[in-house]
Amino acid sequence: MERIITLTTDFGLRDPYQGALKGAVLNINPRANLVDITHLVNPGDVREGAYILSGAAMFYPGTTVHLAVVDPGVGTRRRPILIETENYFFVGPDNGLFSLVAERDGVKRVIELTNKEYFRPEVSETFHGRDIFAPVAAHLTLGVPPENFGPVINDMQGVDDAGRFDEPPPAEEGGALCGRVVHVDNFGNLITNIRGEDLMEYITENGPGRVEAVVMGRSVSGLSSTYASVEGGAPVALIGSSGYLEIALNRGSAAVEFGAGCGENVELRVIKQ
Amino acid sequence: MERIITLTTDFGLRDPYQGALKGAVLNINPRANLVDITHLVNPGDVREGAYILSGAAMFYPGTTVHLAVVDPGVGTRRRPILIETENYFFVGPDNGLFSLVAERDGVKRVIELTNKEYFRPEVSETFHGRDIFAPVAAHLTLGVPPENFGPVINDMQGVDDAGRFDEPPPAEEGGALCGRVVHVDNFGNLITNIRGEDLMEYITENGPGRVEAVVMGRSVSGLSSTYASVEGGAPVALIGSSGYLEIALNRGSAAVEFGAGCGENVELRVIKQ
Amino acid sequence: MERIITLTTDFGLRDPYQGALKGAVLNINPRANLVDITHLVNPGDVREGAYILSGAAMFYPGTTVHLAVVDPGVGTRRRPILIETENYFFVGPDNGLFSLVAERDGVKRVIELTNKEYFRPEVSETFHGRDIFAPVAAHLTLGVPPENFGPVINDMQGVDDAGRFDEPPPAEEGGALCGRVVHVDNFGNLITNIRGEDLMEYITENGPGRVEAVVMGRSVSGLSSTYASVEGGAPVALIGSSGYLEIALNRGSAAVEFGAGCGENVELRVIKQ
Repeated sequence: MERIITLTTDFGLRDPYQGALKGAVLNINPRANLVDITHLVNPGDVREGAYILSGAAMFYPGTTVHLAVVDPGVGTRRRPILIETENYFFVGPDNGLFSLVAERDGVKRVIELTNKEYFRPEVSETFHGRDIFAPVAAHLTLGVPPENFGPVINDMQGVDDAGRFDEPPPAEEGGALCGRVVHVDNFGNLITNIRGEDLMEYITENGPGRVEAVVMGRSVSGLSSTYASVEGGAPVALIGSSGYLEIALNRGSAAVEFGAGCGENVELRVIKQ
Repeated sequence: MERIITLTTDFGLRDPYQGALKGAVLNINPRANLVDITHLVNPGDVREGAYILSGAAMFYPGTTVHLAVVDPGVGTRRRPILIETENYFFVGPDNGLFSLVAERDGVKRVIELTNKEYFRPEVSETFHGRDIFAPVAAHLTLGVPPENFGPVINDMQGVDDAGRFDEPPPAEEGGALCGRVVHVDNFGNLITNIRGEDLMEYITENGPGRVEAVVMGRSVSGLSSTYASVEGGAPVALIGSSGYLEIALNRGSAAVEFGAGCGENVELRVIKQ
Repeated sequence: MERIITLTTDFGLRDPYQGALKGAVLNINPRANLVDITHLVNPGDVREGAYILSGAAMFYPGTTVHLAVVDPGVGTRRRPILIETENYFFVGPDNGLFSLVAERDGVKRVIELTNKEYFRPEVSETFHGRDIFAPVAAHLTLGVPPENFGPVINDMQGVDDAGRFDEPPPAEEGGALCGRVVHVDNFGNLITNIRGEDLMEYITENGPGRVEAVVMGRSVSGLSSTYASVEGGAPVALIGSSGYLEIALNRGSAAVEFGAGCGENVELRVIKQ
């Protein structure tokens, strides 16, 4: 059966690990359509893995299996799980890696992977990606029903246990909407945790006026629709393609220009005119 | 339908963007055969994107769809286009990204992408790759005829407008053939804009004698057929696999050894003996 | 025919080379299932290429074609070969790249690639990957019998000639088992050439007692089953997923912590208690 399996890991691109992972899938279903989302999650950074996965997974067709392995606790008591959501299957460690995306798509059930029949014959204590998650994902694409892989566990518990990332959401303080940078992308764009909807609500309540974003003590005036709305080298604030506020530089890197990275505070105000 | 779609972008490999792009294709044609050419074009560097695409695209079978997105002007008036050439389809922004390769393969027609029926339902102003180009490429592999995507525009104009890269071609000055380094590859080879044919013509006209290439004030004597024609650590000049003059180092990096990068001048002479 | 072709090269991900290689395969068999093992082998580092390939190849289904190109001697008298092993086909240069993996899987025969009928019409002296190895691999997946590509050569000779990597195997000296670091992975784990079996045999002969590993003058006590068996930031010795002794750091990089890299000595002792 031809079915899509996406891969999101922190294995890097220079070791045998991601090649071994793919082999372990194809060994069971040689017709699986493997698609790399990324193998460059910062090693062990579950939060970053969850962020990247949540930004890509929802664009795939229904029944896609999203296999993700950022698994610093491999071989310990963190559970291996399969999450069935409204549209997808997610396979990997129960450590919060799926919390953002599962919540967004709607969890139907969470299954603990216990049935060794669907694992590789020998399971290494240090590479469950290859020995448990890859074979389970492959069997899933061959039509094995989810309940065959193990017991249904308390669904939301299965996700909660793992620890959602308790990032404080953006909040209003002293009349400003305060959030922070949660990702710096390849273009040096500073992507914040302030959703477009929240920004619009804040502006509606505090307007009319001119929106001003402040990062690292420097202000960016106005909201634009795209990067090239301003001159080359000029900063721009906009709602990016993932629906969050971004601070960017037209034809340049805002991260370099502002000297700002992940975790930096971003303040928004409406300046009355 | 199984059809090949190649991908050339500046999205990097660490963000959700290229994973989202692939999802947007597979959501429309789950059987599309996605092949990465590169996602590591220097951000916003249209010229480099054009160079890499032109070095890989022509090796693919006919009817391959080459989807390329290096798009610093996304959301502005630069047009989204589909180019039909003798053998291929190219989908992406009309900013010169396809100028090298389209010219080489022979443009049949250029179509402006205006028919929203083939876009994602919501089009972000900052990510036409995901919302316009990916769905159009996918529909193309499903057999939608090119003319359905929008009006045929003045073909060569469509490409010209975008600005071919007005690099001065190699020229003869003071008896020397003068070109420059246009790419430094993974091995540190300095790839120039001097074509093998031009070099041969120059030698025929100026010979007989010994060919000498000068870069950064240092000369490389003779033309070799392959890297290992000289001793390890020695410099070598040869016509590389893309048909252009390269200055390389056997088992080493010419870029490091010569301290030379993109844009550096290269002079060729025939020394009478 | 749908057949898997894996790719292992030192081409990098930023040049047209790996995209051209894939095109050259698909041009002959558009249904080949191309899977990247890595393109980030250190340029010209045949030993590293052999290491990565041997760590991934054996997880693929039988009849997979492993195409590998780390080929500093391209265009010289090193032979282009096809190796048929118990389960796989390997295609690439006869320079030792396949020595580790071919030995492990069991060589059936080695064929020198001489039949130009299966090459690209024009063969560049500097890019046999694209012009010889890719087309041969593609034809192989279309069912061309191995003997059609050229003469069977003295099999083990074919591999031996290329130079196995004459790394001294681990040895006992002064009561200690002495090996060395042969790879530093993406997580900073120090992977040694000491096999789990050898370690177990040494312990059996020299025990009972507590195992102690010494790297860079610092000792790691005991053998663990997984990384998270020790506290975050603490060092750990374990038999890794490839079956070799690793020195790692739970949630950190042993390479950074110990200041150790490839080639470093590792000593193991059993301390009587």
